[in-house]
Amino acid sequence: MSRQGTRLDTKNVNSELFTLTYGALVSQLMKDYTNVEDVNKQLERMGYNIGIRLIEDFLARTGSGRCYDFRDTADKIQMGFRIFLGVTPTITNWSSAGDEFSLQFESNPLTEFIELPDHCLNLKYANVLTGVLRGACEMVQMEVTSWFAQDQLKGDTVTELRVKFVKRLEDAIPAGED
Amino acid sequence: MSRQGTRLDTKNVNSELFTLTYGALVSQLMKDYTNVEDVNKQLERMGYNIGIRLIEDFLARTGSGRCYDFRDTADKIQMGFRIFLGVTPTITNWSSAGDEFSLQFESNPLTEFIELPDHCLNLKYANVLTGVLRGACEMVQMEVTSWFAQDQLKGDTVTELRVKFVKRLEDAIPAGED
Repeated sequence: MSRQGTRLDTKNVNSELFTLTYGALVSQLMKDYTNVEDVNKQLERMGYNIGIRLIEDFLARTGSGRCYDFRDTADKIQMGFRIFLGVTPTITNWSSAGDEFSLQFESNPLTEFIELPDHCLNLKYANVLTGVLRGACEMVQMEVTSWFAQDQLKGDTVTELRVKFVKRLEDAIPAGED
Repeated sequence: MSRQGTRLDTKNVNSELFTLTYGALVSQLMKDYTNVEDVNKQLERMGYNIGIRLIEDFLARTGSGRCYDFRDTADKIQMGFRIFLGVTPTITNWSSAGDEFSLQFESNPLTEFIELPDHCLNLKYANVLTGVLRGACEMVQMEVTSWFAQDQLKGDTVTELRVKFVKRLEDAIPAGED
C-alpha cells in the first residue's frame, strides 16, 4: 500500500479545528470546576505538561543550543509561537533590568471567534500558554513565570503576555554529557 | 503597528501541539467520567459541536455544492480530512448497496505518540471524529453514522473509520432560496 497522507511532510492541522478543540477543552473544564480560578490553574497545568513535551520538537526543528541571555530566550520563544501556533508576536516592553518582556499578539488562534460570556470574565481563556512556556523553559533549565497583562477577550486592543525570568535551574544532566 | 503573524495566510498550527491538546482533553474526560463509554459519548458530542461549525469553513474553502451521491460525499469527507487534519485517508470497502464505505488511515494526528494504558482499552480515543462527521453532514442535510472498525491504538495495522449513510434530512431552508 502506498503511503497516504501528507502529515509527515506538513505536520500541520487547520487552525480552526485547533481553536474548536481547545474551546471544547475549556468548556469541559468550566463544567468540571465551580471556581474559575481552578479552571485557570488547570489550564496552566495542562500547558505545563504540553510544554515539557513540545520543547523536544522545538529543539529538533530549530537546532537551538543554550540561550546566551534572556533576549536570546525571548527570540526563541517568539520562534516557538511561529512554529507551533503560526503567529509571530512582537517582543516589546523590556524591563530595565532585562529580566522581563512582553509578547504582543494581534491575533491568537486559541481565541479566534471566542467571546467570553459575562460569568466568565475572570477566566484566563488562553492560560494554557503560560503553562507551555513554564514547562518548555524548565526543560532547558530556566524558570520563568508569565501572565496575561492585556487580553483582547477582555476588551483590550492587543493581547500581551508578560514573561519574567525567575532563575536558572541546576542542570539535570551531568556536566560531562553536556 | 504593522500586522504581525502569518496566521491569516497559513491558518495552520503545528500538529504536535494539536495532538497534545487533544490528549489533554481526553485525559480530562477520563478523570471526569468513571465509565469509559461515557467518555466515548462525550467525545462524540464534542465532535458534533465542532463539526457543525467546521462545515462552514469547509464549504467556504472548497466552494462545494450539494453532493451528487454518497460516493461524492465520500470524496468530500476525504477532502475534509486533508484540509483539517493534513491526512488523506484511503476510501475503500464500499458496501454493495453503496451506502457504506471505509476511510483507512495509515497515520492519524490525533493518535500520534499515543499508547493506551490497559485500563483504557475500551476508550475510543479518536471518537471525536465520528461526531465531527455526524455534525458536519447534518448541516448539509445528510444523516450519517460512523464508527472505528479497526484502530491502530488497539493493535490493528491500520485505522479504519466506517461511514454509513442513514437518510437525507429535510432541507432547513425554503426551496425558493436554494
